[in-house]
Amino acid sequence: MTTLDPRIATRLKRNADGLVCAVAQQRGTGEVLMVAWMDDEALHQTLTTRRATYFSRSRNRLWVKGETSGNTQQVHDVRLDCDGDTILLVVDQTGPACHTGTPTCFDADSLL
Amino acid sequence: MTTLDPRIATRLKRNADGLVCAVAQQRGTGEVLMVAWMDDEALHQTLTTRRATYFSRSRNRLWVKGETSGNTQQVHDVRLDCDGDTILLVVDQTGPACHTGTPTCFDADSLL
Repeated sequence: MTTLDPRIATRLKRNADGLVCAVAQQRGTGEVLMVAWMDDEALHQTLTTRRATYFSRSRNRLWVKGETSGNTQQVHDVRLDCDGDTILLVVDQTGPACHTGTPTCFDADSLL
Repeated sequence: MTTLDPRIATRLKRNADGLVCAVAQQRGTGEVLMVAWMDDEALHQTLTTRRATYFSRSRNRLWVKGETSGNTQQVHDVRLDCDGDTILLVVDQTGPACHTGTPTCFDADSLL
């Protein structure tokens, strides 16, 4: 049972797994840090604690970003897109966002 | 049958529908414009034409962004994330990115 505000919950368009896509962007620079997923409870915790919290599909549980690495995300804005299936988080990232140690998950290579 | 370069195709981690997530970001400002989906052919066309091309889940077909509205995206970079399931497009957006007429799909409201 989630405690997400029902006024927000009714606006979400979840996928078959009950998740919405979440894009984390660095405040100020606009750098796109990573893309992950949220269930209702992850969104609730993100909104109330202001620490980015996702739903880990591999571990099948809530995942407070940085809970083990310390590379947390302080949340400054949470925006829902036009059709309700994607959330944009504007954050201050502590340390590298990517588990590989790079600043973002998109640093490895360009396909062009 | 897609013509996507097999060296790229082998690196993609597609969802159950054969799609990867794609985030479009405005070059220069870093503004996150929209999130959509790509199959292999959409990625191939994006890489070769430099016009952002997605797979429309509602229409179940390739969708060249702006093909009817004229609000195209000229692609300057295409980056694959660390685990191969998300693509970041750095684009020059012509006109509003959102079908609602707003500059981005995240302009409507903040949940905080």
